[in-house]
Amino acid sequence: MITLDQIARECGITYEGDATSILAINTLKDAGADEISFLDNPKYIADLSTTKAAAVFVSQATAEHVPEGTIALVDDEPYLKMALASKLFAPLLVDETLPAPVIGKGSYVAPTAVVANGAVVGEGCQILAGAYVGARSELGENVTLHANVTVYHDSVIGDDCIIHSGTVIGSDGFGFAHTKLGEHVKIYQNGNVILEHDVEIGSNSTIDRAVFGSTRIKRGAKLDNLIQIGHNCEIGEYSILVAQSGVAGSTTLGRNVVMGGQSATAGHLTIAPFAQFAARSGITSDVKEKGIYGGFPLMQQRQWLRLQAKLARLLKS
Amino acid sequence: MITLDQIARECGITYEGDATSILAINTLKDAGADEISFLDNPKYIADLSTTKAAAVFVSQATAEHVPEGTIALVDDEPYLKMALASKLFAPLLVDETLPAPVIGKGSYVAPTAVVANGAVVGEGCQILAGAYVGARSELGENVTLHANVTVYHDSVIGDDCIIHSGTVIGSDGFGFAHTKLGEHVKIYQNGNVILEHDVEIGSNSTIDRAVFGSTRIKRGAKLDNLIQIGHNCEIGEYSILVAQSGVAGSTTLGRNVVMGGQSATAGHLTIAPFAQFAARSGITSDVKEKGIYGGFPLMQQRQWLRLQAKLARLLKS
Amino acid sequence: MITLDQIARECGITYEGDATSILAINTLKDAGADEISFLDNPKYIADLSTTKAAAVFVSQATAEHVPEGTIALVDDEPYLKMALASKLFAPLLVDETLPAPVIGKGSYVAPTAVVANGAVVGEGCQILAGAYVGARSELGENVTLHANVTVYHDSVIGDDCIIHSGTVIGSDGFGFAHTKLGEHVKIYQNGNVILEHDVEIGSNSTIDRAVFGSTRIKRGAKLDNLIQIGHNCEIGEYSILVAQSGVAGSTTLGRNVVMGGQSATAGHLTIAPFAQFAARSGITSDVKEKGIYGGFPLMQQRQWLRLQAKLARLLKS
Repeated sequence: MITLDQIARECGITYEGDATSILAINTLKDAGADEISFLDNPKYIADLSTTKAAAVFVSQATAEHVPEGTIALVDDEPYLKMALASKLFAPLLVDETLPAPVIGKGSYVAPTAVVANGAVVGEGCQILAGAYVGARSELGENVTLHANVTVYHDSVIGDDCIIHSGTVIGSDGFGFAHTKLGEHVKIYQNGNVILEHDVEIGSNSTIDRAVFGSTRIKRGAKLDNLIQIGHNCEIGEYSILVAQSGVAGSTTLGRNVVMGGQSATAGHLTIAPFAQFAARSGITSDVKEKGIYGGFPLMQQRQWLRLQAKLARLLKS
Repeated sequence: MITLDQIARECGITYEGDATSILAINTLKDAGADEISFLDNPKYIADLSTTKAAAVFVSQATAEHVPEGTIALVDDEPYLKMALASKLFAPLLVDETLPAPVIGKGSYVAPTAVVANGAVVGEGCQILAGAYVGARSELGENVTLHANVTVYHDSVIGDDCIIHSGTVIGSDGFGFAHTKLGEHVKIYQNGNVILEHDVEIGSNSTIDRAVFGSTRIKRGAKLDNLIQIGHNCEIGEYSILVAQSGVAGSTTLGRNVVMGGQSATAGHLTIAPFAQFAARSGITSDVKEKGIYGGFPLMQQRQWLRLQAKLARLLKS
Repeated sequence: MITLDQIARECGITYEGDATSILAINTLKDAGADEISFLDNPKYIADLSTTKAAAVFVSQATAEHVPEGTIALVDDEPYLKMALASKLFAPLLVDETLPAPVIGKGSYVAPTAVVANGAVVGEGCQILAGAYVGARSELGENVTLHANVTVYHDSVIGDDCIIHSGTVIGSDGFGFAHTKLGEHVKIYQNGNVILEHDVEIGSNSTIDRAVFGSTRIKRGAKLDNLIQIGHNCEIGEYSILVAQSGVAGSTTLGRNVVMGGQSATAGHLTIAPFAQFAARSGITSDVKEKGIYGGFPLMQQRQWLRLQAKLARLLKS
């Protein structure tokens, strides 16, 4: 159990209030009374005044918005201090104190595969050679992990999922705070990955765990090989992502979105259900309506084709 | 052994004819008398009338073209029904009834590497820690599988091939049929991958197995890291593919093709021998002559350079 | 120990001089008196006349520039002959004669992880299931190798580095000489990879070993998932590389360079410290000043935005 005292000491901050126990870091919006939060981007200031967090890292300038009942952890660099604190909440990668894994009836675990302590594997699963299931992860029924798949700790994988070789579920999202000298301080990624039922992921894809909360691949989505899904993304039901495409952190795809090969999105976007993106589309802002898009910057695919025709004429002129 | 009866039951189809034994699904063109096929794309209707398949999934509209001696499996959604049937032909991923693997003289298999039952490894091979060779796969002589390589079942790897760590040979091609509700039904990929002699593949590349038949990398081809080869591709002799490039399903490269970094092709294309593609080329139609190409859409590389010069002038105007 | 005699025999070359012992192949500039070198690209001819190499592969036309004390290995195809010779210097992948690995105090090595003979692991490291550390590699203190990481032989990994699952450190650089018939002859990559302290690399990235010398990732650099680093690159301190980006061989990034998602560089470039590249930038020449760049071909990012605005107008016209 981490106390607020320990956190403050780790970060070199003094505060007024109780040395209460803290379970996790979370966003201002989602934090409960046993969690801490932070305000970095001023656009979330409204969330500060309504947060339920036990304590919040804030700058002097925003400290006045901290609501009653929440402790202000005041610092010049609140984001950096949150990063320092995040390490305290990282679970052990190897925890021998957890109970032996539970393997469901009829499930096969290859002799060189490893299911870590605290993990639960449902019935009828196949876990092939060299595959790894981390601590406290849960696999549903009839899940197939092909050889050399890695599932990090605390992942949840639904029934009938198929994960092909080399794919990594739950590696750390790419998150750092930066010092004034340009060094990077790791923000420990203490969220997880959830794959709903009937998801299939090809080989050597990477699905990053959330910083807080979950990265979620919804029911029936199909991902090809060498795909990158950033932390805290949500991939809609029955979406199709073709090889070498990428979705940057915190982007949400609606249901039945189709992303062509080598296409990619920026982070923090919302993509309408049934939107389709041609190969190598570059999506840098929200897509509000279904349609067929292409190009970088993104436009309607038929516009992109017209533009290419115009450029061909320009070339001849 | 699967009978036509079982297939029809799995798909909810009734038919007239014998409950003959079926070995596999195949294309209309390649199917033999102990295989079944399907007609989805009307452009293959000529192949229907000459097919030798034992039975064919067809729609009511095309059933009249089914030749004598071939049984019509009539359904509104013949492609979807083929997908449902494909599962019946998927081999067991773990088959303890197969004979112990055969390891050739002078070959090294690391203690944590696994060569599955039914596989055959030639002489002088090195199979490093954590590498996996699936059931019934065959390695020639002097093959090197670096640590944590995965070779799926039924793959064939020629003499002197070198496969670097994390690369996956024979994971499932990305193939699905779609229901009217937008769900995806897996088409089991029951073909394989063949690497001819003297192929080298870098690390974390992915070579998908064929849906029917083989994905083939021909003699002396050299592939870099993080490359995607879709199902049923053929990569010509001595071709060179630079890192992060991709070849979509059913595309054929002639010999000595060079694909630059992050370049890619669409599917079902034919690329002329000795064609060269600059980094990040996007190839969306057949390339009939050798030359140096670039851009997306693709053009001659010197045209692409001219276009960029024109755009630079446009920018200044 | 390889003698010049063996090398000459392997390459079918005759020469005048002693059968001296040779330790390695190196560049003209860096080769010492117990190494051999080669001249392929005429732009390095000045380096030939000052080389300290014991012997040099040269063509008849350049043989006159070989300095006294250096033996000329004259051949029509000096680069091809260097490639043939490189195989002689490749170390055994599995060498049982090396001493047992040394594992530092408090370090955890999972039962299915492998640390090869001759390797040294510092204190407080965590090497998870299926990870592999090759012969003679050295890990500093508090290094984390997540499950199924591969570290090839002779790599050096600094203190506090974190390597995520599926990432491959030290696979062969992509280097071949070509015969007149268009076949490719492997240039064995006998250099290594060095990660300085506090480097973090995401999942399924690939860092190629140098052909000679070292590929180097400098202190505090942070790399995301599915990133390609070619042989002999140098990635500057505190640089940030976002997912699916690539750096081609022999390119040097200064400190605190930022490369956006899916961006890439050509080979043999020098990139100024603090330069930033937008997602999908394509860098094909040296970048001499810090700034924010984008596009392919590369330009200042604000120019790229202006160009896109002009193209949008062109489309409407």
